[in-house]
Amino acid sequence: MINMDCPLEEKNFETIQLAHGGGGRMSQKLIERLFYPEFSNPYLNQQHDGAVIPIVEGEIAYTTDSYVVNPIFFNGGDIGDLAINGTVNDLTCCGAVPKFLTSAFIIEEGFAVSDLKRIVASMQKAAQKAEVCIVTGDTKVVDKGKCDKIFINTSGIGIIPKGIKIHPSMIKKGDAVIITGAIAEHGITILSERGNINFESDLKSDTASLNKMIQYLLKEIPQVHLMRDPTRGGISSTLNEIAEAASLKILLEEEAIPVKESVLAACDLLGLDPLYVANEGVMSIFLPKNKTERALEILHYFEEGKNASLIGYVLDSNCVPQVIVRNKFGTMRVVEMLSGEQLPRIC
Amino acid sequence: MINMDCPLEEKNFETIQLAHGGGGRMSQKLIERLFYPEFSNPYLNQQHDGAVIPIVEGEIAYTTDSYVVNPIFFNGGDIGDLAINGTVNDLTCCGAVPKFLTSAFIIEEGFAVSDLKRIVASMQKAAQKAEVCIVTGDTKVVDKGKCDKIFINTSGIGIIPKGIKIHPSMIKKGDAVIITGAIAEHGITILSERGNINFESDLKSDTASLNKMIQYLLKEIPQVHLMRDPTRGGISSTLNEIAEAASLKILLEEEAIPVKESVLAACDLLGLDPLYVANEGVMSIFLPKNKTERALEILHYFEEGKNASLIGYVLDSNCVPQVIVRNKFGTMRVVEMLSGEQLPRIC
Repeated sequence: MINMDCPLEEKNFETIQLAHGGGGRMSQKLIERLFYPEFSNPYLNQQHDGAVIPIVEGEIAYTTDSYVVNPIFFNGGDIGDLAINGTVNDLTCCGAVPKFLTSAFIIEEGFAVSDLKRIVASMQKAAQKAEVCIVTGDTKVVDKGKCDKIFINTSGIGIIPKGIKIHPSMIKKGDAVIITGAIAEHGITILSERGNINFESDLKSDTASLNKMIQYLLKEIPQVHLMRDPTRGGISSTLNEIAEAASLKILLEEEAIPVKESVLAACDLLGLDPLYVANEGVMSIFLPKNKTERALEILHYFEEGKNASLIGYVLDSNCVPQVIVRNKFGTMRVVEMLSGEQLPRIC
Repeated sequence: MINMDCPLEEKNFETIQLAHGGGGRMSQKLIERLFYPEFSNPYLNQQHDGAVIPIVEGEIAYTTDSYVVNPIFFNGGDIGDLAINGTVNDLTCCGAVPKFLTSAFIIEEGFAVSDLKRIVASMQKAAQKAEVCIVTGDTKVVDKGKCDKIFINTSGIGIIPKGIKIHPSMIKKGDAVIITGAIAEHGITILSERGNINFESDLKSDTASLNKMIQYLLKEIPQVHLMRDPTRGGISSTLNEIAEAASLKILLEEEAIPVKESVLAACDLLGLDPLYVANEGVMSIFLPKNKTERALEILHYFEEGKNASLIGYVLDSNCVPQVIVRNKFGTMRVVEMLSGEQLPRIC
């Protein structure tokens, strides 16, 4: 594997050097040795400035996200699978079947090549699970101290099957609101790891791609009106956004919202409301009420959906937007969108 | 423009706060006040997790690049138009008509909102000139000291017209090599500004989108075999990459390579070879020899192509890859790919 034409690389391939982002021989070798073998697929293997992809007529979904999570490795995942799953889920929200991803790295000089390898392997594993290809990429290296270890941008393209129309304007009064899994796991895991708080519990990020499960759901229930993954800002912010986009009043039953005991305990201790804590493997779904039972059956069939619950209803439409939570005693409270910042850099 | 529901924002809208990347109210306001008004178009205005785009059957080109240039404002451009032009040119290299771009910002806490506005305006101006839409985006804010002011990722989709086939394997022995403009202007400008070296000259980045010019060229000469924009690593690295990808021997005539006097003087002073210095508004083009004259006529018609020159030929194919430069005395030298790093963070 040692190329004698390139002594710089041989000497330095334990850490990332500025020259690995310089567009010359060392960039080329980094790509050839690290990225191509892992991500290999016919599109990437074109080795062009971009990938050329055949596409059939129809609608595509197109999205982008940068990932700056700190720490880069955490219980349940790392910045790599997070970057794949997050973008896959954003495409899924649009009703699309995710197909093609790009991956662009900004790496701090001196970053360990072994860590980069671990991240890249984790990306590929997540990509394979979600059945997407990483078709093109970019690598920039910045001087030490000018970024925090590694930032990853992934953009993605998905194909929207005919007959699927996912949009806030589709939501109707009486629609059911389903959440596909227990909430607040990602945010609380990141926070506890960052603060070096050991809860001696099973806190673990829920990062996961949900496209397979959702595709199955949409195949049987194409009448789904809207899906949104409640990442930054938690389900409160996401549902408020939806309420505002479609002028809805949404009522949530607090008792029905799935939260693990350990997550609830950690939130209590830290004074956090789980409704505002980020998720990375959960989807909120709006659909006609009469489809609820079957939807839950389908979701429960999947590991990622085993805690799926009906958590509320759309009380009213064409009204002042509001998200209301009713607790087990029947007391109602309005939950607002997150105003400031609860947990920076959770994704 | 002041929203009393959000006092945090009102107080702090002179600089970017962590909460502007938190996914809550402040993120929403930043997007609504700064990004949407500037980038406005029907796709972006869907305000979904991704953009939904109708597409006709055929081939698309898909690319991504992160921009980490330092300084972020420089003579002739800034990180904003660079991020648009660079991605537009990468799509153009694939023979595509650039159409849809994403833009993802990573911003350092405390960054001036006025600078962000200036960058966003510059992106939109470049997007309009290139006739592309920014259809979706993302904003992350990292704590002070964890990135260098602002990094921007743009990905892009372009439509490849039928009959266009741009690939290293298309290049034939005898093909002409054209460069569309004077070289080394971007890299030397960045370097001189960074080093605070005042050459008292007209050094200016060549950042420009070349898609209009190239589309015109391809319409009349669809037989173009390959295009590549010699950014990082300069034309030496790019031509070496092409030589390797297609097993070619390429001969360049040094006298024919356009370099401005001021650029040459600055390179001389700094001990840099202009063949290795980055360009951001120049394309290298391989095409059948008998199309050279007409190609140059077309290129000269455009401001970006007024210095276009025939700079060499493909001497041999199916051979050991090599790029050779012949100077005015007839002496030949082999130019290699850039090995280490000449100028970090030029794009």
